[in-house]
Parts: sequence; C-alpha cells; structure tokens
Amino acid sequence: MSKRKRIIVIGGSAAGPKAAAKARRIDNDAEVIIMQKDADLSMASCGYPYYVGGYFDDRNMLLCTPAGVVRNPLFYLNAKDIDAEVNTEVTAIAVSKHSVSFRKLATGETGTLAYDKLIIATGAVPRIPPVPGADLEGITTLQSMRDADFLRKVRDEGSIKKAVVIGGGLIGIETCEALQLAGIEITVIELLPQLLTFLDWELAKIVENHVRSKGANVITDNGIAAFLGENGKLNAVKLQNGTELPCELAVVAIGVRPNVKLAKEAGLKIGELGGIEVNEYMQTSEPDIYAVGDCVETVNRITGKKVHAPYGDLANLQGRVAGENAASENCVKFPGTIQTGICKVFDYAAGSTGLSETNAARQGLRDVVTVINASPDKPGFMEGKLLVTKLTADRKTGKILGAQCIGPGNVAKQIAQWAMAIQGKLTVEDLINADLPYAPPFSLAIDHFIATAHIMQNKIKGRLKGISCQEVHDKLQAGEKPFLIDTRGPEEFEEMRLGIGETLIPLGALRKRLNELPDDKNKEIICYCKISLRGYEAALALEGAGWKNVKVMEGGIMAWPYPREK
Amino acid sequence: MSKRKRIIVIGGSAAGPKAAAKARRIDNDAEVIIMQKDADLSMASCGYPYYVGGYFDDRNMLLCTPAGVVRNPLFYLNAKDIDAEVNTEVTAIAVSKHSVSFRKLATGETGTLAYDKLIIATGAVPRIPPVPGADLEGITTLQSMRDADFLRKVRDEGSIKKAVVIGGGLIGIETCEALQLAGIEITVIELLPQLLTFLDWELAKIVENHVRSKGANVITDNGIAAFLGENGKLNAVKLQNGTELPCELAVVAIGVRPNVKLAKEAGLKIGELGGIEVNEYMQTSEPDIYAVGDCVETVNRITGKKVHAPYGDLANLQGRVAGENAASENCVKFPGTIQTGICKVFDYAAGSTGLSETNAARQGLRDVVTVINASPDKPGFMEGKLLVTKLTADRKTGKILGAQCIGPGNVAKQIAQWAMAIQGKLTVEDLINADLPYAPPFSLAIDHFIATAHIMQNKIKGRLKGISCQEVHDKLQAGEKPFLIDTRGPEEFEEMRLGIGETLIPLGALRKRLNELPDDKNKEIICYCKISLRGYEAALALEGAGWKNVKVMEGGIMAWPYPREK
Repeated sequence: MSKRKRIIVIGGSAAGPKAAAKARRIDNDAEVIIMQKDADLSMASCGYPYYVGGYFDDRNMLLCTPAGVVRNPLFYLNAKDIDAEVNTEVTAIAVSKHSVSFRKLATGETGTLAYDKLIIATGAVPRIPPVPGADLEGITTLQSMRDADFLRKVRDEGSIKKAVVIGGGLIGIETCEALQLAGIEITVIELLPQLLTFLDWELAKIVENHVRSKGANVITDNGIAAFLGENGKLNAVKLQNGTELPCELAVVAIGVRPNVKLAKEAGLKIGELGGIEVNEYMQTSEPDIYAVGDCVETVNRITGKKVHAPYGDLANLQGRVAGENAASENCVKFPGTIQTGICKVFDYAAGSTGLSETNAARQGLRDVVTVINASPDKPGFMEGKLLVTKLTADRKTGKILGAQCIGPGNVAKQIAQWAMAIQGKLTVEDLINADLPYAPPFSLAIDHFIATAHIMQNKIKGRLKGISCQEVHDKLQAGEKPFLIDTRGPEEFEEMRLGIGETLIPLGALRKRLNELPDDKNKEIICYCKISLRGYEAALALEGAGWKNVKVMEGGIMAWPYPREK
Repeated sequence: MSKRKRIIVIGGSAAGPKAAAKARRIDNDAEVIIMQKDADLSMASCGYPYYVGGYFDDRNMLLCTPAGVVRNPLFYLNAKDIDAEVNTEVTAIAVSKHSVSFRKLATGETGTLAYDKLIIATGAVPRIPPVPGADLEGITTLQSMRDADFLRKVRDEGSIKKAVVIGGGLIGIETCEALQLAGIEITVIELLPQLLTFLDWELAKIVENHVRSKGANVITDNGIAAFLGENGKLNAVKLQNGTELPCELAVVAIGVRPNVKLAKEAGLKIGELGGIEVNEYMQTSEPDIYAVGDCVETVNRITGKKVHAPYGDLANLQGRVAGENAASENCVKFPGTIQTGICKVFDYAAGSTGLSETNAARQGLRDVVTVINASPDKPGFMEGKLLVTKLTADRKTGKILGAQCIGPGNVAKQIAQWAMAIQGKLTVEDLINADLPYAPPFSLAIDHFIATAHIMQNKIKGRLKGISCQEVHDKLQAGEKPFLIDTRGPEEFEEMRLGIGETLIPLGALRKRLNELPDDKNKEIICYCKISLRGYEAALALEGAGWKNVKVMEGGIMAWPYPREK
C-alpha cells in the first residue's frame, strides 16, 4: 500500500477549512487534518456584529451549513472525510522534521505529528491599546465567538447603559451599530481625523454625519489614554485630551495584527508588514509549508506592493489556492487583492475598491484625477436612494485606479461594478458606453456608475472644471470670496441650503439674469445644485457667456460634509 | 456675425433629447431644435408598467427632472437653451437640400427648415399581430404615454376582470405584473415555447413557474388567431389552437420594429434587420445625418454582428455620442452592445448579458461550455435569497460569453458583474479570485458570481461532470434509468423532493453506505442536493471509491424547472 499524503492545516476558522476541503476534493486519497485551538470550527465571524445586533437570534446560524448542519468535527469527518481536531493547540512546527507538536487543551496531552504538506491559517489577533487598565472587566474585542456571545448577552440583558467603541474602522462601526440597536448609548473614539480610512476624508465625514444622526456620538482625532475602573470593573475611559467618558463597556476595535508566532518560531520568513511572506502559490519560505488568510501578507494588484488585507473573502480564496497546491503541486496562483471592501452603517453602506485619493498619494502615484458624483441609484418614481461616489483615475491613461461609494442606495452593486472594471484594467473611455442591466426597479437609464465615468471624462477633457466641497470650504475659511451660485429652484432652496454666501439663481432663469453676475469675467464663480448636474449646465452657460473662471462644486449639496444652514 | 450651426433632432423621447442636450453642451453657440410629434417630451417610458401597476401615483414623475420640474418646451428653452417644438410632425427629409418638412398638428401649418446636422430619433413602433379584429376597442399596447394613461385608468376604475397579454417578452411580463397587481385575472400568451427569450429555456421555465405562482396564467407555444368582439368591443381572444379566452382587455406586447419611414423615404440606407444603418459614430449613409435609439441597428460587441436592441439605456448613450459628433465633428464612437437586460417579475428579477446558450448556438459559436449554479445571494442569517445563474463560456479560451440570472436575490448586481467581466474580456480563470465587496449584509464570503466561476473552472478542468436538469429529465423521459442520489438530509427530503426515482443518501452517510450503490462501476450515477454543492462533494467521493460515470445535476432542486413530487 502506498503511503497516503498527509496534509495538516493549522486553524479552523475561514481559510483553514476552505484549504482542507479543497485539498480533499483534489486528492481523494490524502489524509487531511485540521488542528484548531478553539472549540468551534468554520465560524462565520463576519456575521458576529449582526448576531450581536439582533438581526437573528439563533447562534447556530453562524456555525451551520446553509442546510442547517453544524460544522463540527463529525460533520467534517462524515461529509468531507476530514479529521478536524478541535481544542488542539499546535505549539511548534519542526521544519526540518516536517512535523508539528500539539497539545490537547482538554487533557493536556501532547504529541507530534508528521506532515507532507502544512498549511498555516492562524489568523490575526486584535490589537490592544498599550494603556493602563486594559485588564479591567468590561473590556472586550469582537473577534471570537466568545466575544460575540458576551456582547449578545450584553444586548439581551439590557443592563448596560453606556459603551465606548475604540476604533472607527469597519469592525468598530459595525459594533457601534449593533450596540446602538441594542439601546446602548455609544461613543466611537477614533485616533485619526476620520472614520473608515478606506474612504477619503470627505466621504468618511458624510458617513460620520449619518452615524451621528442615528444618535451615536463620534470623537475623532483623539485616542484612549487609560481605562478607568473600580473593583476591577471598567467605569470610564480617559482620552488623550483628558476627557473622561463614563461607560460600563468598552469594545476595542483598533485593528488586528497577523498571528505569526508559530511561523516565526519555525523560522519562516516574515514580511515587513508583520505577516507571513508567501509567493503567488501561497507558499512560505519553506516549500512544503503554505500560509493563508489573515496571517499572511498579500499583494496589491494595482501597486504591486505588499499589503495586509484581513478580509474573509480573500481568506476563502487563498485557502482554495493553497489547498489545491498542497494536494497536487504548485499549479494555481493567487493574484492578490485590489482591497475591495464594504460595510453596513445603519441605513447607509460604505464601500471602496482600488486606491482612494489618499492611498494613491501615499503610494506615490502622480497625476491622479478624482471626481465626486452624487445621484439616486434608481428613478425617483421607484424610490431611488442616494449614492455618492468618488472615482480615482490616472489622468494620462484614464485607467480606473479606485472608487469609493457611500449612501443609502445600492452601494454594493456600484462597488462590484468598479471592482470588475479595475480587474478588467478598463479606462474611463471604456466605461463611457458600458452596457449594464437597466430597468427602473434597478437603476437609472444612465446608471450612477456610467454617469460617474461621464463626469470624469468631462473633467479629463477639460469641459468640467470641478472643485471639491472641501476646497470650497477651505477657500471660504481662508477668506476668499468666490461668487457662489446655487442653481436650484426657490422651493428647494427654502427647504435646504448651505448658507455660505451663495446667490440663488435657478438654472432656468440664469440666461436672463446674467446681469446679476460679477462684471469681472475673470472672477472665480462656483456653481452647484443638489447633485451639481444643473450646476454643470449653469457653468457651461456662463462660460458660453464669457466668464473664464467658472467651476462646478462636485457632488453638490449631497456631497457637502460640513454643517448646512438649513 | 457668423452663421450659427443649426442642429435638428427628430424625436423627443429618450435618445433625441439626450442628443440635443449633449450637442448644446458641446457647442454653446449652435441652434438646437427638437421636433416631436407627441405632446410630451422626454418621457420615462420604461417606467410605464410601474405607473400602471400603482408603484406610484403621480403621472408627472414620468415627465419630471429629479428636482420635480416638468420637462416641457419651456424647461428645454430656459434650462438648456433648446427649442423643443412639440405637436410637430416631421413629414419629410430633403437630403440634397439639407432640410426637413414639418406640420404643426394643432394648426395644420406646414413649413420647411434647413439643418446643418440632423439627428433622427424616431424610435420604434409596436408590432401588431396581423389577425382579424385588431381594431376592436379594448386592445392596446404599452408603448406611449397615452397607453400608460389608458391602462392606469383601467387599474383605477377596477371594472375590468379579465385581460390577456399577448407576448411573453420583457414588456409583456412587466405588463402582466402591473395588471395582476391591479386585481385583474391575467393570461399571458406566447407563441414560442418559453417566456423571456433572452433566457435559455430552463431558466425561463423557472420564471414562468414564479409567474404562475402569483396567480397569472401562462400559455406558451400558442399564438393569437383573432380578436373577437361585439359592438366594436373586445370580448375574447382566439388562439391558434382554437381556444377562446374571454377578456375585456388585450395588451399586445410582441415586440417593436424600428420606425424608419422618414429615413427610408429620404433614401438613407436601411439594414437587414430593418433599422437605420449607422457607423460607429452613429452616422447614417448621409454624412450630415445621424440616427440613434430604437430606430437604428447596432453591433453586438461579442459577435460583431448587427442587432436591433431597443433599450432605453443604449438610446441615451447613443444620443450622447451623436450629439457630440453632430456638434463638433466625428470624434466619439459607440462601441455597440452586449445586450444586457433585466426585468422585474413580481418578487423575482430575470437578467441576462452577453450570449445565452441558445444565442451562442444561433450565432454558430462552437465549443461553448455552460454551467448552472444556484445559491443564496447572502448568508442565511442575513436572509439570503436564491439566485440561479447560467454561465456561458468559450471552452478553449475560458472567455466569458454570457450569463443569465434569475431569482428573488440581487440579480441586478450579479448581471452587472458579468456585464463588466465581459466588457473587460475576462476569462473564467480571471474571475476565480475576483475581489468583490464582501460583508454579510451584501454577499456570501465567496460571492455567487465567484462560485459560479469556480464551478465552471471545475467543469472545464473535468473535475465536475455536470448534467443539466433538462438532460436528466430527457433521459428519464426516454426510459433511461440512471442511479439518482439526493444527498440532502431526511428532513429536507421530507419537506421537498423531486420524486424521480431518487435514493436519499445524505452526504454525511455516503461513505458508510457505498454498499447501496450499483455494483457496476460504469453505471451512470447522478448526484444532486438543494443546490448541488453537497451533490458535487458526493460525486467526488464516489469517484474516489471507484465509480467511473458519476455526474452532478447542476443547480440541484433549485434549478429543476419541472413539477416536483413535493
């Protein structure tokens, strides 16, 4: 009898089980073993915030197949012929011996097991701020099933009144929503000037306004200095600026770092960002060891640079690649990520793919052009909801570099479209006449996505001289006095307006009221409306009438991230 | 004073106004004139079924800008500096004189007007079946604002009890839904064996089942032979097989043909499909005349062949191209269509992009491989809804040729993703590791789209031997006796099952119950489950155990278009 190949997978959350299952499907004869420190397997960890928030009540739904079977060791054995050893901690990898040492947590029993191929899927560990009091009762993360159980209990008991979420990233915001829905008074603390750093500032600010509108408090530009407590229990957090916020619960969500302890001790190469270094086959510096998921560094497909991208979808895809390569030979590649992500924020969604303007600048990209577009996702008569998109492209080639989108509209569809456009290496010109599924229940006749490409084309061709809300705001703060025209109707103006010194001249009246405009044809004029479509038409009319310095405020009032007069 | 360029646009629905507006924006000095036979301008005609169905009550929403301004001649004059002449029929184009003749419908006044550039946007006219009785009262189309007003009145009055919709295409189905929601008993008649011919038969059949489940009757493979009536009023339709269906209302929706009367009389070249021939600049055989929208033929970007694609989104995009070229010089191109479309069908949507299997065969494409995938669009704990996708690819290159998707899930997002993938000329391999926006409120960790690519990859690599429900059904009808295994659990089987002679062997029990399988290792075995994920794992296990002719029924029970036992 020929020796069966033994494939050991360390880690049973997302990437690990996927790698094991794929390895099994590729090699029906191999012995496939998962070793998992925790008791649970294959938890839908991205679903924790929704369990905590009460979107569903049955905890088992996080652990079940769609058919309702709990993914426990028996399931893995019977359905997949995979030996899943839970409550089993791998304590060391002996590279030269091709073996792992493990310890059974229940019995304390230890042992070693040889492998032919090893797949490391040890995930990431939450960062904890290095401040006093971090061991007080009432401080948690939302990283494990245990955390989810704890926070769900907090929700169900309803005894906690005030909580602080430390960190305004994706998990911080999802946790904020979950606890807010549980009736807890929430404050989100973020060290940086904005929430959700995958967005540029102005879009993040609109999301922040939405979070506040739901009753949650947000403090940016401020970090935590200490956890304060009494009798071992948290009763406040102290911020770096001295403020003390009373609270009985603090959820820490300031990000994660790759869990590379085992890999490092085994002598595997660790990358500059702290993740396990892998090649395109998901193979580590040791040829018989693969690594996948939140513990590795991957490549940004646009910049070619290494990134740490701890996303559940990438973990699954990497697992599939490593599973196949480990079970046969290196034959499939993982191409990296364009860092596509999305996050529910109460009635909004916020998503991004590719490079934001900030990220593009950080990566040293030159001659990047951006545009902001605001519009409904569907016609008004089908109850269209707002989308605000910021698109980033290379000015010379027109190549799409990235897109961010926020709002109550169908953000996921927009981001999916941009993600595919980036993966197809498409340019603005390619998208001008994109053929997308149109019917009034699903989109505008010219979809928000295509309209965004149109505006970008107009900007690149020099037809649209755009200016961002932020630039307009900065000008006004600096004491500049551009001539500002709101081109909407009087009723709209009465209902909502910026109040930044603008003159109301409805587009339909503009051509007759040119005498109200500055005599100086070189005077800076800035036009806008609700979404700046009429603003754009107004600017073209004014240019036609001889004014030479006319700009359009991109996205109009819907993209204005500052307080409005009304 | 230099002579102003005059651009005349014939037609004021979708493509015409878009062309006029773009021409105005490109050339601020030009004189831009729209001539429109009807009274209304720029009607959101794709919204008619939703107005009829009562999704909204304010008729003006079909005629308004998002800001609520009716797009009438005054609006065009003031906001866009465009002269929109409504109730004005263009009666002839004199190509050699560069002029059009027109007649004012209100006064009978006639005249001629010279143009520098002409843009024809005369749309399409509904086909009417050449059968007796077509002039009876109670027969309508849903093509004009007048039709919409009429049918909305039918809804509001509530006096009509029975109606027949002739034609099971996009508009027929949308009309069926609208009238069904109005409490009218509906029968849809379709000459072909299926509804919605942009879908392949098996997906169309699932949609048909859904339509029936809503209480509407569907008759396929049968056309209309006559409209029957009394005192000039419709009281029944007679079908080709002799059946008479009593009804007080018939809506004809058997498609449209390009309205090319003017163009033809002017000597412009008409294509083989009956539309005005245009080049990539949307220019007709006369260099100073452009044509756009439902009256033209365009190019299928995948096959390079001419098609008539009367879609509102393409009309708008073509208008933008022609407007710019007419206002400056030929500088922008329209690349054609991949025939992306979508349609709401009660709680389902049905969409398609690129080539269906049927269309690919009709176009003579060889070596096309297809796969069907069924799965929820989101995790169960976020109330995921079913999607069924059929993907078409070129077997040799893996290039995506087309995708169809139906179901209550987010079909629009799926189709949008496939449409972008086709426009990016991506292959199955390119999509295996697609980076899409994942979070539980929006998708599965491995999105339905990516999973479909995975299944296609497995099929192309020979790992998945797929068989369609249709092929299984045909085999059984032909008296063949494959060994059929339903790999779900007993409770699932109790709740729903095909009842086609299958044996229930849950995946988890399969490896222990191999003795129940045929001794003959060459016997044909077909595995399936609800969506055939477990079916696939079962097939691999059986192949591992030595059976050589094991197939997976693609899409499982969810893709089964025939009646079920339970």
